[in-house]
Amino acid sequence: MIDGIQFAGVASGIKANGLDLGLAFFKEPMNCLSLYTRNKVKAAHILYDRKIEHHPVRAILVNSGCANACTGKEGVSDLKTIAGELSGILGTNKEEILFASTGVIGRRLPTGRMISALPGLYKSLRNNNIESFARSIMTTDTYPKIVSETIHGEKAYNIIGVAKGAGMINPLFATMLSFVFTDYPVSPSRIKGIFSKAGKETFERVTVDGECSTNDTVTLFTKTGEEDLDGLDDFKNKLYLVMKALSIMIVKDGEGATRVIHITVQGAKKKEHAEKIARRIAISPLTKTAFFGCDPNWGRIIAAAGDADVPLRPSKIEIIMQGRQLVKESVEVPFNEQELKKMMNKKEIELTVNLHDGKASFDIYTTDLTYDYIKINASYRS
Amino acid sequence: MIDGIQFAGVASGIKANGLDLGLAFFKEPMNCLSLYTRNKVKAAHILYDRKIEHHPVRAILVNSGCANACTGKEGVSDLKTIAGELSGILGTNKEEILFASTGVIGRRLPTGRMISALPGLYKSLRNNNIESFARSIMTTDTYPKIVSETIHGEKAYNIIGVAKGAGMINPLFATMLSFVFTDYPVSPSRIKGIFSKAGKETFERVTVDGECSTNDTVTLFTKTGEEDLDGLDDFKNKLYLVMKALSIMIVKDGEGATRVIHITVQGAKKKEHAEKIARRIAISPLTKTAFFGCDPNWGRIIAAAGDADVPLRPSKIEIIMQGRQLVKESVEVPFNEQELKKMMNKKEIELTVNLHDGKASFDIYTTDLTYDYIKINASYRS
Repeated sequence: MIDGIQFAGVASGIKANGLDLGLAFFKEPMNCLSLYTRNKVKAAHILYDRKIEHHPVRAILVNSGCANACTGKEGVSDLKTIAGELSGILGTNKEEILFASTGVIGRRLPTGRMISALPGLYKSLRNNNIESFARSIMTTDTYPKIVSETIHGEKAYNIIGVAKGAGMINPLFATMLSFVFTDYPVSPSRIKGIFSKAGKETFERVTVDGECSTNDTVTLFTKTGEEDLDGLDDFKNKLYLVMKALSIMIVKDGEGATRVIHITVQGAKKKEHAEKIARRIAISPLTKTAFFGCDPNWGRIIAAAGDADVPLRPSKIEIIMQGRQLVKESVEVPFNEQELKKMMNKKEIELTVNLHDGKASFDIYTTDLTYDYIKINASYRS
Repeated sequence: MIDGIQFAGVASGIKANGLDLGLAFFKEPMNCLSLYTRNKVKAAHILYDRKIEHHPVRAILVNSGCANACTGKEGVSDLKTIAGELSGILGTNKEEILFASTGVIGRRLPTGRMISALPGLYKSLRNNNIESFARSIMTTDTYPKIVSETIHGEKAYNIIGVAKGAGMINPLFATMLSFVFTDYPVSPSRIKGIFSKAGKETFERVTVDGECSTNDTVTLFTKTGEEDLDGLDDFKNKLYLVMKALSIMIVKDGEGATRVIHITVQGAKKKEHAEKIARRIAISPLTKTAFFGCDPNWGRIIAAAGDADVPLRPSKIEIIMQGRQLVKESVEVPFNEQELKKMMNKKEIELTVNLHDGKASFDIYTTDLTYDYIKINASYRS
């Protein structure tokens, strides 16, 4: 709970069932800073918010069930219409309201239904209602994702974050939304670099399916007014922890995922090489299906590494799975396959690929690829 | 059938069941030209053949069931051992034998079993036995892939090609082997560029799962001796046709595939942009699962296009599926979803994405992503 921030979530009928409209409302204007998708095709809320976020805001309205992407100029003007209605109810300026959307691409928002739901949404605003908000932004997520920390300085502050994820998740973003709120007073200009770096080291280090959505957004809201620099170091730490925890929750709840694989590539000449190899392994469908089947099929891992389009000494590769060395100098170290299968039948798997070619490293989290991913995505318009 | 070329395939016990060792034997030495995987990690047969293929050869021995990749120096010396035995049986020089392998990475060839099988393999060599050869190189393929054409010039020649594919298939190659034989006499130097271009326009234009193997090889064998330039134009055409037909057979027989999707990206500023977008769509798991489910979910197509890391005018995109315009200027053209689902419930799907930003285009073939892909790759060590 953070004083001065209220949350609500209602079912407005955008989706056939369940909560689909969430509101965060701030008693006082708050600073905001956002990270957006790298996708060249961007949803209407990104086009809209970008013009607003350089000044403090009073609210963010988030919907699931409709991405409001590829909806042309109308998609943006729909947001203007809703902002007009909502600002009247909240008693704010029209330009103090941000938006975010997630869901099916190409459909326009049902503005009529959404506007009809606004008075009820306003009435259910509560200081302790963040779970409704977190639930209202879910799509194929199986549970709401909320993380909080306390910032310790001369004075104590709170930081609380929510996120939604599930599919279309890839490093550098993918259908994921995350909102982090804090009563710690700090200006956007002071923390822009820190926030962006934290994004790179958290949300950009998870992948489910290599897909990147049109809607990805991470927004941080901080208190306006005089800064308290005393707590800055702890704020940085806690911001990172909240974002890291949310990003791990997203990958754990990846569509159809039964395992999370933490891939570390070490011994690279350059970090950029380690990153390319780690990302290539992390999106390899053959590797991901092998993890689903608990198959210590290291050949697929090495083939993915070799296909990462970076220099590689093909005879030097070492692979360690769950602490057990499987491959040394690119040749198998004999292992008991049944024993290893058992070691791989876990929720979390540690995989290290050492290139023995330098000192740079990079790590990333991914999921296995399962029947349920196909089921969710072949039979459900998400 | 080509005079002077004999084929055989036997079960040597590399795999638990079925044919796994194939031989093509040439009465007279033949020129050879190869295209190999872009993967930095290359199988032993590629390292070995590269040193041989600049002079004419008398045979190629191909095995399935074991990739002989990541087997260190021993992997190459195993081939030398087998070449010693086989050259004795065939009455050729040791350096006149090429190899190719496909199967599980990391295991050494069972040279003992293979050598024991060589006399039987030699005895079953027949001019009309190419089907056994084609079957012996299969892994998860469901049928042998053989295509032949006749070259018309002053004199008639034949060209016949075989291939294996199934999984780990991606543009720029992936576990695929293909061998094309012709009695058309032409020197490697004259057709190197043509062959390489044909490779780019055929085998490099199909993808199943975006994976690239350590073993991919396409080898063309032509008759040595005085060239017959009269038939050169028709040879070029027929070579392309054989390679194109084999590549389409590979994608049609992709692991678990129920449909082939032919993706054409038009209206790009540069061909390179069209290619990147076409390839990005072709490996998108969300797009591929939507095709499996007959879901005209064009938002996933446009999101993949936007994620291709090339300049794009996000408001100009047109999408045409099975001849029906779905999207104009990046906004949906209303369509009857049930009708479209029916149109998509076909073995072959035509998808056109027009960027309306130039005149360049690129096309590629891909498959849908299905439960059976997961089944094959999670439960079978391929």
